[in-house]
Amino acid sequence: MSLSNPDSPLLSFDELRTRLLAIGPERYHHQHPFHLMMHEGKLTRGQLQAWALNRYYYQSRIPIKDAIILSRSEDKEFRKAWRKRIVDHDGDATSAGGIQRWIKLAEASGLDSERVERGDEVLPATRYAVNEYLNIVRNRTFLEAVASSLTELFSKDLISLRMEKMRQHYPWLSGGLDYFEARLTQAPEDAAFAINYVRENAKTRAQQESAIQALRDKCDILWAQLDALYFAYVQPGWPPPSAFRIEVK
Amino acid sequence: MSLSNPDSPLLSFDELRTRLLAIGPERYHHQHPFHLMMHEGKLTRGQLQAWALNRYYYQSRIPIKDAIILSRSEDKEFRKAWRKRIVDHDGDATSAGGIQRWIKLAEASGLDSERVERGDEVLPATRYAVNEYLNIVRNRTFLEAVASSLTELFSKDLISLRMEKMRQHYPWLSGGLDYFEARLTQAPEDAAFAINYVRENAKTRAQQESAIQALRDKCDILWAQLDALYFAYVQPGWPPPSAFRIEVK
Repeated sequence: MSLSNPDSPLLSFDELRTRLLAIGPERYHHQHPFHLMMHEGKLTRGQLQAWALNRYYYQSRIPIKDAIILSRSEDKEFRKAWRKRIVDHDGDATSAGGIQRWIKLAEASGLDSERVERGDEVLPATRYAVNEYLNIVRNRTFLEAVASSLTELFSKDLISLRMEKMRQHYPWLSGGLDYFEARLTQAPEDAAFAINYVRENAKTRAQQESAIQALRDKCDILWAQLDALYFAYVQPGWPPPSAFRIEVK
Repeated sequence: MSLSNPDSPLLSFDELRTRLLAIGPERYHHQHPFHLMMHEGKLTRGQLQAWALNRYYYQSRIPIKDAIILSRSEDKEFRKAWRKRIVDHDGDATSAGGIQRWIKLAEASGLDSERVERGDEVLPATRYAVNEYLNIVRNRTFLEAVASSLTELFSKDLISLRMEKMRQHYPWLSGGLDYFEARLTQAPEDAAFAINYVRENAKTRAQQESAIQALRDKCDILWAQLDALYFAYVQPGWPPPSAFRIEVK
């Protein structure tokens, strides 16, 4: 389509935001069959364990991803703003941080924290998808690295729905939802900062298109993680050697 | 010498610490002729400006270096400890941070802060030496990346002496010494953490030797920065095109 031709004129901020927001309905993972089943109450506890255990690998890589971005910025003010993300995930003196909260969720699903942290039952496909996120923030332009975080534009609605559905369908998980509670405020703050960064730093149409593409690519990385879970644990389903095997209904 | 043969037996912690500390007298930059002249009151204000302006490039890369190390750690607790260094340099809501304090020193020498931050008069050789530090923490083993920070073992004595000599010989710089004041407590804390990390993680003699070598290499990077200053601004002395030129006595 003509809009994605980098030779086209610069998008206004409204047009840019519209293009970015349009990626949500198009490819954000809220529509993935694994999530649809989750929200319909159709996942077993074992399948939710597989999700929690695999997604832990993603969570554990987020502060590493953000530190890569930090390491690429020569702007002290940018770094000061961005390092909040690392604190959000790793915690500080007053807060456990997102990684620890995710462990709590995994424990609520019935998994031992040590087993989750060890990570040796994570699906290889999960690992490859997550590592590609690190590749993007390390090797693409800095603008694309920042723009790849913009999935946070879409996460609040998904998280609100997920919390409601989890309390409804999987009440035994209710004690482990602190991670999502915290993300309800963290993610929109982070998205506002990142979209503002993209607005100010995408100065050509080609750069605007590269930012849009980075968000698309990031959505694909999230989607691929659910594909891995779905194909290993839902249907037809066999986990590769040494990956997590479902033991509970 | 036999001690540096990686096939030799593991060093005790006392032996390792002794080897590391021995690198100070051997190659730390407190003995560099540029520093000796500084402490003897023999540098002109122009030469001190050249030093402040060039060293700013080093200061500006320190939090980037630390963020690279952060990005390479998979250990949340390590990251939580190490990120202090980034805060120390970039500042937070309650503190200006080391980069800003260095600007204050440069201003006390009579330089405009904007000119220092722009960095386009930095000596190429300064830039190459500092960038090599980034290469080391990015590309060597993680142990070596951490060990390369151990010059902080030696900095307190140098900084104490420097503050005394600056107040004595260059009283017009006295208002700009906050950077050094802060480093008097920050550096020993950081060194204690890093040497403890090396103790616990250098599990073979070859690893111990690699850590010792990393500290040696880091000393050489600091030394090379003063060589660049000395050869451009002290003797025989000509700065390359577009580098800072001395304008004041």
